[in-house]
Amino acid sequence: MKKISGTHISNTIIEELRLEVLALKEKNIIPTLAVVLVGDDPASKIYVNNKKKACAKIGIKSEEIILSADISQQELLNVIDKLNNDISVHGILCQLPLPSHINEKIIVERIDPNKDIDGIHPLNLGRLCMGNAGTPGTPIQSFFYPCTPLGVLEILKRSNIKIAGSHIVVVGRGPTIGRPLSIMLSLKGMDATVTICHSKSANIKEITKMADILIAAIGVPKFITRDFVKEGAVVIDVGINRSSDNRSNDKIVGDVDYDDVYEKVSAITPVPGGVGPMTVAMLMYNTVRACEKKFPL
Amino acid sequence: MKKISGTHISNTIIEELRLEVLALKEKNIIPTLAVVLVGDDPASKIYVNNKKKACAKIGIKSEEIILSADISQQELLNVIDKLNNDISVHGILCQLPLPSHINEKIIVERIDPNKDIDGIHPLNLGRLCMGNAGTPGTPIQSFFYPCTPLGVLEILKRSNIKIAGSHIVVVGRGPTIGRPLSIMLSLKGMDATVTICHSKSANIKEITKMADILIAAIGVPKFITRDFVKEGAVVIDVGINRSSDNRSNDKIVGDVDYDDVYEKVSAITPVPGGVGPMTVAMLMYNTVRACEKKFPL
Repeated sequence: MKKISGTHISNTIIEELRLEVLALKEKNIIPTLAVVLVGDDPASKIYVNNKKKACAKIGIKSEEIILSADISQQELLNVIDKLNNDISVHGILCQLPLPSHINEKIIVERIDPNKDIDGIHPLNLGRLCMGNAGTPGTPIQSFFYPCTPLGVLEILKRSNIKIAGSHIVVVGRGPTIGRPLSIMLSLKGMDATVTICHSKSANIKEITKMADILIAAIGVPKFITRDFVKEGAVVIDVGINRSSDNRSNDKIVGDVDYDDVYEKVSAITPVPGGVGPMTVAMLMYNTVRACEKKFPL
Repeated sequence: MKKISGTHISNTIIEELRLEVLALKEKNIIPTLAVVLVGDDPASKIYVNNKKKACAKIGIKSEEIILSADISQQELLNVIDKLNNDISVHGILCQLPLPSHINEKIIVERIDPNKDIDGIHPLNLGRLCMGNAGTPGTPIQSFFYPCTPLGVLEILKRSNIKIAGSHIVVVGRGPTIGRPLSIMLSLKGMDATVTICHSKSANIKEITKMADILIAAIGVPKFITRDFVKEGAVVIDVGINRSSDNRSNDKIVGDVDYDDVYEKVSAITPVPGGVGPMTVAMLMYNTVRACEKKFPL
């Protein structure tokens, strides 16, 4: 099928995880995710809610820690420390962005790397760089992969899209998506040839038109049109842009002009319903892994 | 000049550092590098000796800790801990490879990231991924860049080769050179479009022929011949391969067939005398930085 449903794949993963968690519970192990939410950013609230819902479906216990927007950095560090030391908590998610008086890097580095189910601690990114892990998506990992890149990888694998030997072009070099994804895809065992380009790249169309698999993570609505795409390419749209009409029911727009490229590609993820739901699924996946590492089946 | 002399550039850097160290010494600050050598691998001994010589030229105090090949992992960890806690030691270099009964990853992760002047601790690699640093080569860095990639960057900058907007192809994805270099070159402020290819890449010549700057770090003698290179490209050869004739005076051969590509390129680094001497110079650079971070000028 040309249109790849991330919703469908994420539901499959959630069902797989539900069965895993059932088996864990028979051993009296309850995977537990602590979600820290600072302030009342509406988008953050929605994200946190989606994560709670996914936890409920799978049987992961979610503990929500809601903190006032004026909490001091030290107080937040104390909250993180407490969760780090709580052996009943397997994963810690601190919803970003944080209020501007708090240094996000300091908070992220404080999370125990073994509980960093978001896969954003620099120690986990560094291990990713060194490639000293199992293959992404396998049960045994020596660290956590960041959720959205891992979701993209799962989409490709579960859609039987060939990664090894393919030329993959990643448009976007952000530290949460483009950067780690470009690394993961070229690791040993993945074996893609990977080009990373970005807002400062020259001749960007020339580059993207070489891609067997084109991944858009540049954060510009409908940036990728048909003239960026090789005939028969696979296109993965990681963009989540809110449309400019400022109503409460914001429309989500991807980085790819879906209708414009559709006829030219061999497969494509839509927005919404593509990579978006995968991010939450892989967060759940990492949480179950974090739990199993401590209580091997 | 078409042939880029890494020897010349590294001598310039060493002279710059000598003057910096003179100024530090006037404040009674003596930059100190601890070099740990386990066993008696002849190549490792040569490397350590070169590093000691560079220290002597610059005025960096080098402390050599020579350990027997049968030292236990725990004993080596104790040595590292002692150096971590010694405030007179600014940089720690543990010469790799280590004997096979010792897990290198565990040793490397034990080195205090603030003394990791080799830039190989995963926390430093992770920070590099996140791009949360000053620009490489500037005095203020929030972490250390690995020495050989930093040396390549210095060669490009001091030879006035344009990085921003260029398409740079890195052949090789190893965790010490190809991988971090590909990341550094595409960071904000560097702004190259970067392709990483490797032994499993298909159509590798097609890819390398697009490169404005081609960097060879694949570890195969004379792998890059003229048919891999675009007319007028810049070629940086990071290969250090020992020739197969097993005499004590091994000949060093690069990853590039220098004579074959010479007429076609606009600039090229030789082997030896190219990237090799830069690695030691940048190790010295990182050591002085490590010292200054603690004792700001």
